[in-house]
Amino acid sequence: MIIAVDGMGGDNAPEAVVEGCVEAVKELGVKIILTGPEELIKKTLSKYTFPSESIAVVNSTEVISPNEEPVKALKQKKDSSLVKALNLVKNGEADAVLSAGSTGALMAGATLIIGRIKGIKRVALAPIMPGKTNPFMVTDAGANVDCKPIYLLQFALMGKIYFENILKVKNPTIGLINIGSEEEKGNELTKETHKLLKSSNLNFVGNIEPRDVPSGETNVLVCDGFVGNTFLKTYEGVAGSIFSLLKTEIMSSLKTKLGGLLLKSVFDNFKRKFDYTEYGGSAFLGAKGIVIKAHGSSNSKAFKNAIKQAKDTYEQNIVGRITEELEKLDAGSINDTED
Amino acid sequence: MIIAVDGMGGDNAPEAVVEGCVEAVKELGVKIILTGPEELIKKTLSKYTFPSESIAVVNSTEVISPNEEPVKALKQKKDSSLVKALNLVKNGEADAVLSAGSTGALMAGATLIIGRIKGIKRVALAPIMPGKTNPFMVTDAGANVDCKPIYLLQFALMGKIYFENILKVKNPTIGLINIGSEEEKGNELTKETHKLLKSSNLNFVGNIEPRDVPSGETNVLVCDGFVGNTFLKTYEGVAGSIFSLLKTEIMSSLKTKLGGLLLKSVFDNFKRKFDYTEYGGSAFLGAKGIVIKAHGSSNSKAFKNAIKQAKDTYEQNIVGRITEELEKLDAGSINDTED
Repeated sequence: MIIAVDGMGGDNAPEAVVEGCVEAVKELGVKIILTGPEELIKKTLSKYTFPSESIAVVNSTEVISPNEEPVKALKQKKDSSLVKALNLVKNGEADAVLSAGSTGALMAGATLIIGRIKGIKRVALAPIMPGKTNPFMVTDAGANVDCKPIYLLQFALMGKIYFENILKVKNPTIGLINIGSEEEKGNELTKETHKLLKSSNLNFVGNIEPRDVPSGETNVLVCDGFVGNTFLKTYEGVAGSIFSLLKTEIMSSLKTKLGGLLLKSVFDNFKRKFDYTEYGGSAFLGAKGIVIKAHGSSNSKAFKNAIKQAKDTYEQNIVGRITEELEKLDAGSINDTED
Repeated sequence: MIIAVDGMGGDNAPEAVVEGCVEAVKELGVKIILTGPEELIKKTLSKYTFPSESIAVVNSTEVISPNEEPVKALKQKKDSSLVKALNLVKNGEADAVLSAGSTGALMAGATLIIGRIKGIKRVALAPIMPGKTNPFMVTDAGANVDCKPIYLLQFALMGKIYFENILKVKNPTIGLINIGSEEEKGNELTKETHKLLKSSNLNFVGNIEPRDVPSGETNVLVCDGFVGNTFLKTYEGVAGSIFSLLKTEIMSSLKTKLGGLLLKSVFDNFKRKFDYTEYGGSAFLGAKGIVIKAHGSSNSKAFKNAIKQAKDTYEQNIVGRITEELEKLDAGSINDTED
């Protein structure tokens, strides 16, 4: 398997990217094509020993920053490390693309350069998060801010296939993020989506209120990208505020410092447990190729994990399974709705 | 000032409600009309001493539960403690209404029984939450799941008036909850709302991502009720999960138990700080009368705090100020938009 890696994406590029790639080819037996300024990438690679045939470099002279308008950046920076990596998948020279750079540009590229699976209305961002008891998936987590019910039904189907095959949970439960547990609660989108999910053959368990999502009792949570991103960022903000305040309070007296020392293992476990970057990258589901977004602040280990995720997605044939399952779904409910 | 209190609302009714009312009349010098089964309420009242002219009882035989469909419940249960309390405000016999019962029914009653201030499109739920550095308001937090930009502009105006006069923050900052900080980010609703807020004379500081809301740096956060409720419930869920896991971990060994003991004061402070029920009730802004929702699990102290909040809202003439400010707002932007 060959993975195209955007060598210039993320806060720690290219060092952490290159190091993660070197570890991955040695441990996972994949081949990698790194995109970026050839001289810089090769110089960084020269610090490591690895089978030379396992990593190739494709030169690129531009970099897309996370602040650029995604579609414009893709069009104007044809020689960027991201566009070059996306094109490797488009042209069949690589089986997956991975970047820790601009989420928006990667998402736009998944649709505009790689393209959607036939019948899929929208590509969705689908991170896996660490729940209190089990990990859970939120999809869409920010790719599509204005959604129609049919999109959410497709997110549920794609999430199910991914969760079942990558996280090995048979017939995972599907929940609809909603502000009330009763069927008639919510806005126009959730009310219509509820009907679609209920009449599908998915393992739909009904509306799930956001307060019950972090428990991890439901496997796949569907919502529009605005709500999913709000959930994600609130999760991050609340956990971050709690941990930073806790730290300040613990450092405030000798007694509390001692208490903090005794609980160090607890806090360390905890920070890891509530750090949603732990599960490596987020998949973009619905693209014709494998597209993985690594967190912007990824270190080499996180990169290696994201590469492992791309490998699993490839070996489990997620794209092929989505294509097949889509055909099996009631054709009427998918195709009678305009785009 | 006279406050109508739904004697049967909330998990701890009528005991905690009655006790909170007794404390309030003694400490705050307000008068209270309690609604509920006369015999039961009077029997509960008989446990306390208080100036007998300060609490009256209005008999009612029905109770609306939080699971009932709000509008239907209001129509069918005319003799419920909630409808009777709402009618006291409608008929000018009380200056404010307070309930810890069904949020939906109270909200529906605020619009259908008490009515909206002239020009106000929608009544909004506006809880105050404890931030890392300062308290903040989220509005709408769940009353209106499908919104138009003009509603959000009005929520901002009402939130500003409340925050300025009750929390004593001059010209409070207004933020728009959005999934990106840049002006062009978001869905159709937030993009249009951004323009309206920017051209208003409010102290608008732009889009605020949900992860930055818990810091409390921005005073009033506006959003549609679906997003606001998602924020609120995610906040609650994440904080709850963290505290419950922390408790389990601390109890797991002698060493960590000792650490927990040394940090007891820290955790106690913390639970209080992240418990959003601490700020008493949530105001429904935009109704022609004062409508306060106390948390369902309110104890007597929380009830007393909510009564204090109703008193402050009355003394600061929030309803009158909203009415006046609405007239000052650019008439075109308010009235040219259909309901």
